[in-house]
Amino acid sequence: MVRDRVRFGLIGTGRIGQVHAASIAAGPDAVLSWVADPDLAGAKSVAARFGGTPTESPEQLLASGEVDAVLVASPTPTHVTLIGACIDAGLPVLCEKPIDLDIARVDALRPKVAASSVPVALGFNQRFDPDFAETHARIKDGEIGVLEHLSIISRDPVPPPAEYIAVSGGIFRDMTIHDFDMARFFLGDIVEVSAIGAQLFDAGARAHGDFDTVTVVLRAASGSIATISNSRHSAIGYDQRLEAFGAGGMLQVANAPSSLVSASTCAGVEAKSRYVDFFLERYAEAYARELAEFIKLVRGQRSTSPTFSDGRAALIIADAACRSAEEGTVIRLTG
Amino acid sequence: MVRDRVRFGLIGTGRIGQVHAASIAAGPDAVLSWVADPDLAGAKSVAARFGGTPTESPEQLLASGEVDAVLVASPTPTHVTLIGACIDAGLPVLCEKPIDLDIARVDALRPKVAASSVPVALGFNQRFDPDFAETHARIKDGEIGVLEHLSIISRDPVPPPAEYIAVSGGIFRDMTIHDFDMARFFLGDIVEVSAIGAQLFDAGARAHGDFDTVTVVLRAASGSIATISNSRHSAIGYDQRLEAFGAGGMLQVANAPSSLVSASTCAGVEAKSRYVDFFLERYAEAYARELAEFIKLVRGQRSTSPTFSDGRAALIIADAACRSAEEGTVIRLTG
Amino acid sequence: MVRDRVRFGLIGTGRIGQVHAASIAAGPDAVLSWVADPDLAGAKSVAARFGGTPTESPEQLLASGEVDAVLVASPTPTHVTLIGACIDAGLPVLCEKPIDLDIARVDALRPKVAASSVPVALGFNQRFDPDFAETHARIKDGEIGVLEHLSIISRDPVPPPAEYIAVSGGIFRDMTIHDFDMARFFLGDIVEVSAIGAQLFDAGARAHGDFDTVTVVLRAASGSIATISNSRHSAIGYDQRLEAFGAGGMLQVANAPSSLVSASTCAGVEAKSRYVDFFLERYAEAYARELAEFIKLVRGQRSTSPTFSDGRAALIIADAACRSAEEGTVIRLTG
Amino acid sequence: MVRDRVRFGLIGTGRIGQVHAASIAAGPDAVLSWVADPDLAGAKSVAARFGGTPTESPEQLLASGEVDAVLVASPTPTHVTLIGACIDAGLPVLCEKPIDLDIARVDALRPKVAASSVPVALGFNQRFDPDFAETHARIKDGEIGVLEHLSIISRDPVPPPAEYIAVSGGIFRDMTIHDFDMARFFLGDIVEVSAIGAQLFDAGARAHGDFDTVTVVLRAASGSIATISNSRHSAIGYDQRLEAFGAGGMLQVANAPSSLVSASTCAGVEAKSRYVDFFLERYAEAYARELAEFIKLVRGQRSTSPTFSDGRAALIIADAACRSAEEGTVIRLTG
Repeated sequence: MVRDRVRFGLIGTGRIGQVHAASIAAGPDAVLSWVADPDLAGAKSVAARFGGTPTESPEQLLASGEVDAVLVASPTPTHVTLIGACIDAGLPVLCEKPIDLDIARVDALRPKVAASSVPVALGFNQRFDPDFAETHARIKDGEIGVLEHLSIISRDPVPPPAEYIAVSGGIFRDMTIHDFDMARFFLGDIVEVSAIGAQLFDAGARAHGDFDTVTVVLRAASGSIATISNSRHSAIGYDQRLEAFGAGGMLQVANAPSSLVSASTCAGVEAKSRYVDFFLERYAEAYARELAEFIKLVRGQRSTSPTFSDGRAALIIADAACRSAEEGTVIRLTG
Repeated sequence: MVRDRVRFGLIGTGRIGQVHAASIAAGPDAVLSWVADPDLAGAKSVAARFGGTPTESPEQLLASGEVDAVLVASPTPTHVTLIGACIDAGLPVLCEKPIDLDIARVDALRPKVAASSVPVALGFNQRFDPDFAETHARIKDGEIGVLEHLSIISRDPVPPPAEYIAVSGGIFRDMTIHDFDMARFFLGDIVEVSAIGAQLFDAGARAHGDFDTVTVVLRAASGSIATISNSRHSAIGYDQRLEAFGAGGMLQVANAPSSLVSASTCAGVEAKSRYVDFFLERYAEAYARELAEFIKLVRGQRSTSPTFSDGRAALIIADAACRSAEEGTVIRLTG
Repeated sequence: MVRDRVRFGLIGTGRIGQVHAASIAAGPDAVLSWVADPDLAGAKSVAARFGGTPTESPEQLLASGEVDAVLVASPTPTHVTLIGACIDAGLPVLCEKPIDLDIARVDALRPKVAASSVPVALGFNQRFDPDFAETHARIKDGEIGVLEHLSIISRDPVPPPAEYIAVSGGIFRDMTIHDFDMARFFLGDIVEVSAIGAQLFDAGARAHGDFDTVTVVLRAASGSIATISNSRHSAIGYDQRLEAFGAGGMLQVANAPSSLVSASTCAGVEAKSRYVDFFLERYAEAYARELAEFIKLVRGQRSTSPTFSDGRAALIIADAACRSAEEGTVIRLTG
Repeated sequence: MVRDRVRFGLIGTGRIGQVHAASIAAGPDAVLSWVADPDLAGAKSVAARFGGTPTESPEQLLASGEVDAVLVASPTPTHVTLIGACIDAGLPVLCEKPIDLDIARVDALRPKVAASSVPVALGFNQRFDPDFAETHARIKDGEIGVLEHLSIISRDPVPPPAEYIAVSGGIFRDMTIHDFDMARFFLGDIVEVSAIGAQLFDAGARAHGDFDTVTVVLRAASGSIATISNSRHSAIGYDQRLEAFGAGGMLQVANAPSSLVSASTCAGVEAKSRYVDFFLERYAEAYARELAEFIKLVRGQRSTSPTFSDGRAALIIADAACRSAEEGTVIRLTG
């Protein structure tokens, strides 16, 4: 039976790792075969819930001979090494974003990826969100004509802990990077980056020289423009909206409500329930579809999984945004 | 200059009378020529603001020779007499609804109206509301196919004073009568009436044996069904909705917001501003269009003004609803 | 491991039976142990997908000793017999609605149910829909004060086949019965029923003397009013709305959209995607929660599962609606 | 009677001039006394409709002794001269935006304005839009806490003629200038400007070296950020939205619908009617309120009319946006 199922090795059993473990276990096309985490208790806990052999050692997982594909959900600094090891082991790998916070390390890995036929996919799950994907498809079908302006709003409910910010690489590489990938998904190559950042409310961001509020304007090679607005807090819940404007009109993706109930009272009419909490709820379906698409890649089928190149391109934009925000200049990207 | 303008005599200078006075004065097609009210101060006040000669006496107004058409906005018990007097004077008349609370008095006037060529229009202003009229026109154009079910929700912000209820003729003749006319406007002749009423909150209604909450189901000659829900209070503001359902889909008229602003906070998202206060705000445009249509009638042009017959038909439905609610039976209407 | 899980016997493997099989198999609290269907192929197919021993014989299932609770999803005429057999076998049973189309048969079973301590639950799944349940809870919490008027709109996408209508017991017993239960859920005992039906579009309904469009008005013992509007077709997709109006305002449950995307073009602005297809999609979560609540009942915990009495009460209202629609009278229900 | 009314001299009888003439004539506080336009036919036409003495000569109007205040709605190149002439004549003036396209000419006039006590108001009518004003007031009241991010979307239905673009000063000075003033209205002084422009669809803009699509990011002295998105076309109608985001939540101003009707069909659900056509419809109320506020200024009462300084500040931002878009740099504004 397992023969028909892709045997997954999962490296990293934090919040995202657990989401992937659940997705792997839920579907008919995959099985969780090995689970690695230096924190062995974490590996054991995930293995107990979703199957697989727990280990402290990613190397043991890769060498087990019982793994057809690897899902890397470990901390960012380990990604480059693990992708390299997967390539060496000949195992297709789906790695969480970002590849690394340092473009030099990404570029060092780049020739190896290019020289290999082992598929390397990046975890830009938002491409697989049904609503964003539907919008993308409808634009491709010409429903609104040429896409002239893309607006992305992405605001997290509450700022992360200061310790997280310290190692995050900054808001552009940590949070906006999803939006950079979405901009590329909708608009193709980006040639110009202009970013502005502010420290308005979060002491943790301020302490680490990071911004809590940023706006980025991108110009695509096509000439079209994208605007991204991020905030590290949002009293109204997880704020994830997208608006695509073209000659023929506009497609909008609204926030995801937590229920269908609205209240009309003397305080206000048609007040809706709060939005869903955070990315695990908002993008639950996206994670499942991301995995399904990666499984196609593993099986050698046509797949739309974002690649190592997509991960690198988003990081290059993030680096440019950092520089733009710091220097107050517009950054032109070259090839 | 006045030659091109219809010279209006207004009888009654209460709330509705003032609305009509303002409409008459605002447009290029009419002028307020005489204003009658037994309360001479009221007549004088309206004349000072909108023009015309004030008088205590409707008879003087009708005999002035300076009036081309009459607008009757006096208390309901005076309507039958005044319509008759207008016919005698050969003056087209737009009379506020209802014609009378007593169908016997209406029927006594009926032959005179029928025998005369003087136009008698009834003030069912909601037919002229731009949104209801648009919906009506789109249904006629076939946008949703055959109209199968019409739902009307009409709820006033707060109950009227008990003294008003005492002379109102009851909720069906006073409030629902607008909805009965709308049902006829959309569905044509009504052949069956089933009503249910409740005394849930208003001491004034209870004291006078009236209901504060009613639901009426009507069957049209075409077989289609209309549902009407009324309440004498509404914490959310004036609740005036209409939903037309047919084979091809649905047309809905939403409540009229008091602004375009919505608030999203931790308390609820996209909470909109309150609805507009009451009928004077909600149907301001309808009053103006009603007048414009009546002016066409006065000028002998094609006009869609509701007629004496429409006023009588609505009252017959209201009487049937009263009986249905009291007796717990379904009332069949005959020709 | 099975010791901690309720071992289910499923009788009936049609569309709803399969939904329940999937729910049973998905959760950690239950396991599918036996599956019965006179169509053995159906039983085998479900058992292959979700587990359990297949059989043609419900009796064998009940006698297997491997079943802790029974889920009856077989055709309506078998319900009374199977509930009786479950009681005889001492097995808690969750039976799909309705108990039967004939109140006499229901009443014949009633003493047995009353005399037994075996839990009998009825499959009114809409009570467990998260949105309806949230609305119910918020009303209980007093958010809108006393509930004065409840409006339920329920329209199916397309009419069922004529053969289905022939054995359905008519629209009131087949379709409206869900709404009758919802009215009782929100308003308690119903004391008055007034129904009107029309044959507007469905040849199948007409052929079998059934209506395709109905409206029912109910009065609760509390004096409050409920309005139900049904249609056997809806071009806009599955139309399932509820509106609860009270002194303090209104709670509304909107239709479930199939996506978060809206389009604004020259043809219309903010046009949303279609509603979800039908009840399996709209009430997927409700089915899962219904099962969870029944499992509590099986385990002797506090449970809000609707009971045999609820099933009987809804049928009595349905019978009254039939009579009301046929005779054109308002039916008063007595204890 | 005229004593209680401000006697207005209107200079310029184009589209906007006519709007102001109608506003002046409609209210109880003003009267149109003189109307000047080099095109005497235009002056005569406006005078015939709304009152006043027509003339070809603004000088004659200013010298008439029958004017208490002046409304300048003539072409932009005349504004500086006419404001100066009004100051010389001691007549309060409300001048349409912009003061001039050339900041040097504005600065040349500046000392005269500063040295005079004659009120000079600028026609930034959007400040008086009821919805924007409500949002501004609610933010001041603290409803959403500190305003962190302001997003303004402004898109015209169709591009203006190429000849208009030729003399418009470019999109930033012609169209975005309203949004620059709104940004200042909500956020106070602007210290940083970053703009990006594109030529995506309009041949007229391209021919004159102008953009048809622009995005501007502004940083306020407070540190908060504003984003402005403009387009010269919009298939969905006049697109005028504003979103204010703060620690406590968000206030949004939606587009103004042309009716309350929505359609749900198989093509899409809850599709609403188009937005109102263009600025004359969208900002009709704003023009009236703008005038009322200026009348207060004329009467020496407290007034919130935007001033010459506001007009100058918006132009400085527009100039910076031009430079930013051309040079690809972020422009820092100094005092």
